[in-house]
Parts: sequence; C-alpha cells; structure tokens
Amino acid sequence: MTHTPTKKLMNAPEAIIPEMIEGMIYAHPDMLRLDGATGRAVVAVDGPRDGKVGIVIGGGSGHEPAFAGYVGRGLADAAAVGNVFASPSPQHIKEAAMAVDGGAGVLLLYGNYTGDVLNFDMAAEECAAIGINARSVAVIDDVASAPADRAHERRGIAGDFFVFKVAGAAADMGLPLEQVEAAAQKANRATLSMGVALSACSMPQTLKPNFDIGPDEMEIGMGLHGEPGMRRTKIASADAVTDEMMGLILDEMALNAGSEVAVLVNGLGATGLMELYLINRRVAQILEGRGVKIWQTWVGEYCTSMEMAGASITLIHLDDDLKRYLAHPCRTPALTVGTAPEPITGATLTPRDYAAATRADTIDRAALKTDGTIDRATLKTDGTITPQDFRTMMLAAAEAIAREKDHLSELDGVIGDGDHGVTMDIGWTAVKVALNAAPADDTITQTCTKAAKAFLDAVGASSGPLYASAFNSAGKAVADRLNLDATATAAWVEGMLNGILKRGGASIGDKTMIDAWAPATKAALASVPTGDPRAVLSAATQGAKDGAEATCDMESKRGRSKKLGQRSVGHMDPGAASAHTILSAMLAALPR
Amino acid sequence: MTHTPTKKLMNAPEAIIPEMIEGMIYAHPDMLRLDGATGRAVVAVDGPRDGKVGIVIGGGSGHEPAFAGYVGRGLADAAAVGNVFASPSPQHIKEAAMAVDGGAGVLLLYGNYTGDVLNFDMAAEECAAIGINARSVAVIDDVASAPADRAHERRGIAGDFFVFKVAGAAADMGLPLEQVEAAAQKANRATLSMGVALSACSMPQTLKPNFDIGPDEMEIGMGLHGEPGMRRTKIASADAVTDEMMGLILDEMALNAGSEVAVLVNGLGATGLMELYLINRRVAQILEGRGVKIWQTWVGEYCTSMEMAGASITLIHLDDDLKRYLAHPCRTPALTVGTAPEPITGATLTPRDYAAATRADTIDRAALKTDGTIDRATLKTDGTITPQDFRTMMLAAAEAIAREKDHLSELDGVIGDGDHGVTMDIGWTAVKVALNAAPADDTITQTCTKAAKAFLDAVGASSGPLYASAFNSAGKAVADRLNLDATATAAWVEGMLNGILKRGGASIGDKTMIDAWAPATKAALASVPTGDPRAVLSAATQGAKDGAEATCDMESKRGRSKKLGQRSVGHMDPGAASAHTILSAMLAALPR
Repeated sequence: MTHTPTKKLMNAPEAIIPEMIEGMIYAHPDMLRLDGATGRAVVAVDGPRDGKVGIVIGGGSGHEPAFAGYVGRGLADAAAVGNVFASPSPQHIKEAAMAVDGGAGVLLLYGNYTGDVLNFDMAAEECAAIGINARSVAVIDDVASAPADRAHERRGIAGDFFVFKVAGAAADMGLPLEQVEAAAQKANRATLSMGVALSACSMPQTLKPNFDIGPDEMEIGMGLHGEPGMRRTKIASADAVTDEMMGLILDEMALNAGSEVAVLVNGLGATGLMELYLINRRVAQILEGRGVKIWQTWVGEYCTSMEMAGASITLIHLDDDLKRYLAHPCRTPALTVGTAPEPITGATLTPRDYAAATRADTIDRAALKTDGTIDRATLKTDGTITPQDFRTMMLAAAEAIAREKDHLSELDGVIGDGDHGVTMDIGWTAVKVALNAAPADDTITQTCTKAAKAFLDAVGASSGPLYASAFNSAGKAVADRLNLDATATAAWVEGMLNGILKRGGASIGDKTMIDAWAPATKAALASVPTGDPRAVLSAATQGAKDGAEATCDMESKRGRSKKLGQRSVGHMDPGAASAHTILSAMLAALPR
Repeated sequence: MTHTPTKKLMNAPEAIIPEMIEGMIYAHPDMLRLDGATGRAVVAVDGPRDGKVGIVIGGGSGHEPAFAGYVGRGLADAAAVGNVFASPSPQHIKEAAMAVDGGAGVLLLYGNYTGDVLNFDMAAEECAAIGINARSVAVIDDVASAPADRAHERRGIAGDFFVFKVAGAAADMGLPLEQVEAAAQKANRATLSMGVALSACSMPQTLKPNFDIGPDEMEIGMGLHGEPGMRRTKIASADAVTDEMMGLILDEMALNAGSEVAVLVNGLGATGLMELYLINRRVAQILEGRGVKIWQTWVGEYCTSMEMAGASITLIHLDDDLKRYLAHPCRTPALTVGTAPEPITGATLTPRDYAAATRADTIDRAALKTDGTIDRATLKTDGTITPQDFRTMMLAAAEAIAREKDHLSELDGVIGDGDHGVTMDIGWTAVKVALNAAPADDTITQTCTKAAKAFLDAVGASSGPLYASAFNSAGKAVADRLNLDATATAAWVEGMLNGILKRGGASIGDKTMIDAWAPATKAALASVPTGDPRAVLSAATQGAKDGAEATCDMESKRGRSKKLGQRSVGHMDPGAASAHTILSAMLAALPR
C-alpha cells in the first residue's frame, strides 16, 4: 500500500526533539528550564527543593503535552524526554533525577512499555550507585492491553495524567518517598482507560502512517503508538463508541451509587474538542445513570499520538485521599489546578556532588588473574584472550552487524517493526566509537562497561538496555581476570545471557535473543574441559546458530510480535539472529 | 474530485451543537451554565454581576475552544454559540447579553466576518430596544486577509484570544463600558496574526474536505474556514514557514529593540504541540534577534478549524496597560491566568424584567390608513392590497423559492459556495411556518416583523440578517397602513431595499441582491402615478428581472465571490435572481 507522505511543520527530523525542547523552554521560561549534559532533562524552575521527594516523569516524545508539559510546581519536578515513541535513555533519566534530588529520594513514573521499563530500571540502578534513592511506578491503565488478571502487563496511556498528578501532589505536600510511591500506586490501581483510534500517525523520519486502517473503520483499544487494539469495526456514533468503551471500564471498576470519580476525555491529536465534548456528554450520562458522582472532569489533549485521530476515556475511582491529591494546586504548561502556588523563594535545592560517587574505581592490574598463559609485560598470549584481542573481537562484531544490518531488519520486518538491524547498527557503531576512543590498556571488564554505556546511550529501543545489561553483566563475570582462559570465556558468554535474562523478563522459548544466548552458553560451558578459549567460543557460536534456527519453529511470546501468535511461526527471530552474528564475528576475529 | 469521507466521532450532525454544549456544561459545571430559551448562551457561573460591564463573545462553532471555552471569571461572561462555521443568530446573542447585563452595558466581541457583523449588529439593536446598552468590537487580526490600508476589512482569527482577554480583564476591573470598549479596540489595533494551512477540514453534515490542497502543498494565509490565503506553495520547513509568516507580521508591526510583545502560537486542529513548539522556537529566535522582549507566550490550540492541519502566529505589541489586562487573573476552561479569583459570593446579578421592554405594542387598527378603498369590516378591497392578500403573497413567495431552490444553488455554485437556494428555502420555510401560525388579523407590518424574526432565527448565513432587516424596514415603511395603495406598495418595495442597504454595506453595482432590489424600487416609485398597486408591483418585478440579468455583466465586489474578480463576469448573481423570484411570485399571487 502506498501512502501520501504526512505533512508536518518541521525542520530536519533528526533535530526535532532538541528543537521542540528549545521551543518549549522559550514558551515557558517561568516554569521550565533545561538541565544535564544530554539536553533531555526538562526541569521545573521552582519545584525541586531540599527535603522534598523529587518527581521524575518521562517517556517517548510524540505524546505532547506528555511528558514535559506536566513539569512545574506541584506536579513533576522533571521530565526525561525520549525520541519520538522511544524511551529516554538511563542517562537522560539519571540527569533528570540528579537535577531534582533533594536528598529525600526520587520517584520515577512512566508508562508501562518494555523499553521504558528497561531504561527506567537501569536509571534507578545508576541513581542508587550515586546515592539517590530512586523508586519506580509504571502506569498500567489501558484496559484494552491485557485482561484484569494480567493487569501488570497493561500499557500506560492517558491514565498517566492522574497518577502523575497524585504523585506530584503527595511530594509537594512533603510526604516521604514510601508514601509518595504508595499514593502513586493507589492512583495507578484506581485508574482505568479505554481508547479508540480512527486514523494513524506518522514518524517525522518516515512521514508514513504507522498502520493501515480502512476509510470507514475504527479500532477500539488501539495503543498510543498504534499497538493492536481489541476490535476493528466500522466507525460508529459517538454514543455507541462511548458506550462500548465505558462498558469495558465499568465492567472492571467497582462503582456504586454514591461512588466518586474524576473523568478525563482525551484527544489523541486530530480529534478536536467538539467531538471530545460529545463523548464527555455520554460519559456523564452513563455515570449519572448509575448514580456515580463526577467530582471533576478534564476534556482536551492530555496524552496524544501526534496527529492520530481518536480519543480515550479515563476514569479514576476516588476516595478522600485521592481527591485531596488531585485538588492540590499545581502550575505546569499543560495543567493548572487551584490557586497556583507562589514561587518558592526560601527553600531551594542544594547542589550535590555526584562526581565523587561516579568516580571510576582504579584497577590494580597486577591483582587480576592470568590463568592460562599471559606475559604481563608484553601481553603476549598463549591460547588465551587478551584485552587487546577482546577489543579487536568487539570491533569485528560491530563491523559484522553493519554488514548484516539490512538482513536483520528484513527478518524483523516479517514479525516486528522492521528496525532491528538499524537499531543494532546504531548501538554497535556507538560501541566502535567508544572503544576507539578508550585507553589502550583498558581491561576486558572496562571495555565491556564502555560498550554497555555506549550501546545504552545510543539505542532507545529495548535492545539498548538488554545489550547494555549483557555487557555489564559479562564484564562483571570476568572482573577478576586480565585475560580470558576457557573457563572465563564461558563465564563471559554466560554473563551475557544472565544480563539479558535479568533485564528482560523473557524466558527460553519465547522467541527472543535469549534463544540464541542460552544454547550458546550451554555449549560454551560444555566446552570448558577442552581448556581452549577458541573451542569455547566456537561452541558458543554453533550453539547460537542452532538456537537462532530453532526460533523459526517458535511462536512469539514477547514484544510487538507477540500479537502475531501463530503467524510468527516459520520466521527466524531477528534478535537471535544478531546474537549469532556477534559471536560468529568475535570468533573469526580471535587472533590465532 | 472524489474524497474519502472524514471520520468524526459524532451522533446526528443536526444535533452536534446542542450535544457539544451539553458535554461542555457537564465538563465544567464549576465555570459554565446554560441560559436562554434557545440553549445557545453559555454563561459564566460567577462572572456577571451588578455594575460590571457584561462581556459577550461568540461566533460559529468548529473553532473550539473558541468561543465558549473563554467563558469564566475574569474573561468573557457569556458566549453565543452558532452552528458550525455560522454566526449565532441575534436571538442567541441577545440571550447571552440578557444573561450578563449588570446594568453597566454589554460589550459584544466577535471575529470580523459578514455573517457575524450582521447578526451581532442586529443583536445590539435588539439589546438597545430592551434597555441594554450594547457596543461591539469586531476582531481584525488576520494580516493575510486584506492589506494594511484596508485593515477594517480583515478577518478575525486567533487574535480573538488577546482582544477577548483584554476586554474581559478591563470589565472585571470594573471599568465603564466606554473604557472597556477602548481597551478592546486598543488590543485589536495592537494584534496581528498570520496562519498557514496544510489540510482541509470538513463539516459534520458533509464529511467532505472544504477545499482541495495537493499532498505536498501548504497555503500561507488561509482563513479559519478555508478562505483563500495569499500564496499556495510546496510545503517548506518549519523555520522557513515561520520566517515568512513573521516577516509579514513584522513588516507591519512597529517593533524596536526594547519593544514588548506577547506571542500566541496556535494549532488549527491536527497539528500538535511538537510542531507548534518548533514554530515557537523560531518565533522567539526572530524576536530575540531584533531585541524584542517576549513578555509571555502561549502555545496550543486556542482557535481551531476542526481537524484542519496548520498553525497561526499572533503577536500583540504591548504597553503597560495591555500587560496589566493580560496579567489580570482569569479562570475559564481554555485559559487560566495568575491566581484564579475566588468565586464571588457577595456581588451577584439582579434578575431584570426584559418582558416589560419586549411586550408588543398593541395596534389600534382603527387608526391605520386605508387610502385606496378598503372596507374595514369585511376587509374587502378595491384595488388595494389587504393584510390577507399580503400574507397570501408572502406564502406564494415561499413556495416559489422552494421550487427554485436547486436552480438558485446552481447559480451560487458557479460564483459562491453553492448554498444560496438551500439557505433561502430554509428562511422562507420558516416564514411560512410563522405566518401560518399567526393570528388571522395581523397587520402587514406585523406579518413583516414575524417574517423577519423567522428568517433571522432560521438562517445563519448573511442572507438571514439581510432579509430580516429588509422585512423589518419594509414593515416599518407601511406601519401607518392597514392596506397598501400604490404609494404604500412602492414604499414597501423601497423599504426592502433600504433594509438591505442599511444592513449589508454593499453598493449598487457590487453584484448582489441590491442590484435587483434597487431597479425594482426605482421602477415601483415611477409607477406610483398609475395609482394601481398591481402596476407598481409589476413594474418592480420587471425592474428586478432586468437588474438580475444585468448582474451577469458585473464583477463581484462582496463576499466570497469577490476573490473571483473577472471570473465572476458572465454569471447571474444568485441573490439578485432570488429577489426577482420573490417579487414575481408576490405579483402572481395578488388577487385580482
């Protein structure tokens, strides 16, 4: 299907996020400022202060005013701004947390998407490493995205609005981190949403609709990024659509006569207030019919999908606590509630020295093990992998991924969103740049740490955190080694697998990269008795190859391709394929 | 060109405005309530009060949040809500004014469109008739719509935002009507806007794009209803588009280093905040480059065209007065400024008795003239037109217009928007219903007054106020008569012409209905010496016929067809044609 390119008022697509942020700061200098080296932490001018829990929200761009539009006194202290429909990186999030850390801890809030979960989790770990106590709440309001008994798998959509507001108020009231987190989780449990999409939106880079939908069709329950919904059907009347969406929410939300709710009728982009008010009319009639009291209503564009046409309905079931949080004053670009608080003149945020906490540990190379022969002076090896060998092997993997980029993307196009090759190449190119800039005497662990950071900062998709976690974990697994003997080589491969397992939450047989790394690990461990690192790596490579091929017979259980179910059978998983590419290139580059 | 129907979440299109208003009141019961018999006056819950100038805004729907979104304490006291892209009727506006009249007068504010000007002017007259001192300000900010030396002809677009805000603040501060009007006019003079459209929008009734635009085109200066702009071109970068729009504004606005402005970057519907912030970035850079100080910026959807893609830039050149008005607190669904004012508990609005002022004068039929023979008891006539004759003639005109409806619309399709036949039929059908329901002994003047009211309430287009004014004026011209002799018949025709001339502002030769009614009047007056009403009406009919035919050679100077210029030559004006239809039918129905 060919498409007319979408029209957008923009400059270079690769500059769209920094330019958007710049325009936003220009518009709201009384509320927002920029912080951090990456330019992706939008911070409240007068929100953060000593002794207050810092509220950090974030996610991909394209949902404006979410997320930075909710930064301001009484709501979020900072937003980490990702690329279009891509999570902010841990570095973005960490910079936001550092900018708002008042010593009372930081609460990270975001929509429950794989990429966001991975990146925010890593950021929380990085925050802990520099002494910031960070907790996370992933918003899970989208009824359409999973059944009630798997509510923890649900996506976060416009319900962000209520969860963020409650958390921001609790923090502004001076509650401790545990209570702020508890308030946010309470709001999260009380909030349910349903959406309907009438048209697609398009990425600035492609200007192509991100899904096809017939000229007379709508999709009930479609996600904010075009994720499949519950039901595609002929477009119906506003009342009928509202009845269906409200029915699904009310089936699950235990409302009785006398219950109180707040209502958010949210436009996805191209659908204007006229239509949103029609929906709100019906929502109010339905609630009135059940004797439910509407405590307050918001109608407008609060969480969008660029120019997508459609709308969502969000209800939050209120008690006195939640009402008090929602009524607490705030002032942000997208939401003002109550009497806007006076700017804070007394209490301020004391600058902290995170540099001390982040200083790299010095390594005592002499203490590192060299089982299997290695000459410490010349680093000449006798059948082991030296740090220089390892760096060469990593650079070779980067080249191999670059060569296989199109092939990997084609594999992904069959069962995913067709960007795996591009994404991996971006990550490995960043690794190459980082390793070429690193000191010649870096240890294998240092090389792994640098590769992890480079990969993570470069890749917004979930493969970023997964490979970053893999490299970090593998590096740690051989942290006591100068060189890698057979045992250490297998430990490195196993470390890769463990890093992915720990971060990703997928299991063997889910048709992911794990299905290459797990048999690779098994084969590597079995080859340790050979005493030969090359034999271990060779076995790992063969294991990855066999594993990748075996994914053809599997059904997808994770990520976007999960929705394909049986249709995913017969196609190799691109993540498993790229795992084999990496190991194969490393093996070939191991000097003889 | 065929089009895929636009998707809208709506119920029956004919119910869309009352349903939208209902949904809006449901959403904002703390700010808005409904008032008046027609259900089109949205009133601030706590704005209007005794001794305060009432601020009434209004216009067609489809521009949400304009206009009712700006109703609330500190801004507008009420909005009169028209149908989609159609002015509210004088009755709608009058009901809004009555709901907010605190005895200190009412200021009516609206965008400068022919239909709005006519309807608001008539409303101001009706307000005066019931003792409300009403003044009007028509917003004229759209640089693209006329050159600076004809600034009074310009359309009102997003600049409404600043003019309304200033007027609302001045009234809330307690200033008298003259000063509130002066403040609004000052803001009006200081405000300039430029827009760009990327796509069309569609009416709920048709779901067809209201204009065609190429897949790679944009139109600089296009109006809020798809009115032609200045230049159609290939879509350019956000920076280039912003440069062009800002250039046109800055060419006219005398800004120096140190000048202060407020900025409004407004989305037309489908264009989201990401793109609007890109535009704002460039606006701010341009102003910074000139040393102009940006006092405050608003970015968002403040005056839309349903789902049209595009944006507008509005600047207001500030002085201390205007800054004080803009900074004055307000709280409305679409705009909150500063610390929201406390609800008013003391001062309220005293209900007024407008019924006394609107009570119909009783007519002393015995005092009415009957020159030319008429028997008062039987109303038998001898060569004069009796009230019953007149009613029969009016009903015949209604039937004739119904028959000619398609023909008139076809004529209009060539040089206008193709709805003249439909519009006239709607108006005359309403006249028919009103006259059939009227007492049998109504005088000719009473019949004219009822026809005027029926036509006006039914027709939102400019022909509504024009024919309403014509009927009222013609009725007044024969108010001293029971029947019409030759002189009075000519006076009635002349009254029609004068009513149109007074209301419309068009001149003879502009290719409008005047070019039929003027020669009709001339011929009628010339026939008075015959002493025969039939001869007078016959002459008028022939005059209208000749006049309508003569419009074929004319070039349009008014309304939408004006843009056609020379291309309008060769086609009969539909308004002139329908004038002939009316007179011809009345002549044929005059009993012998």
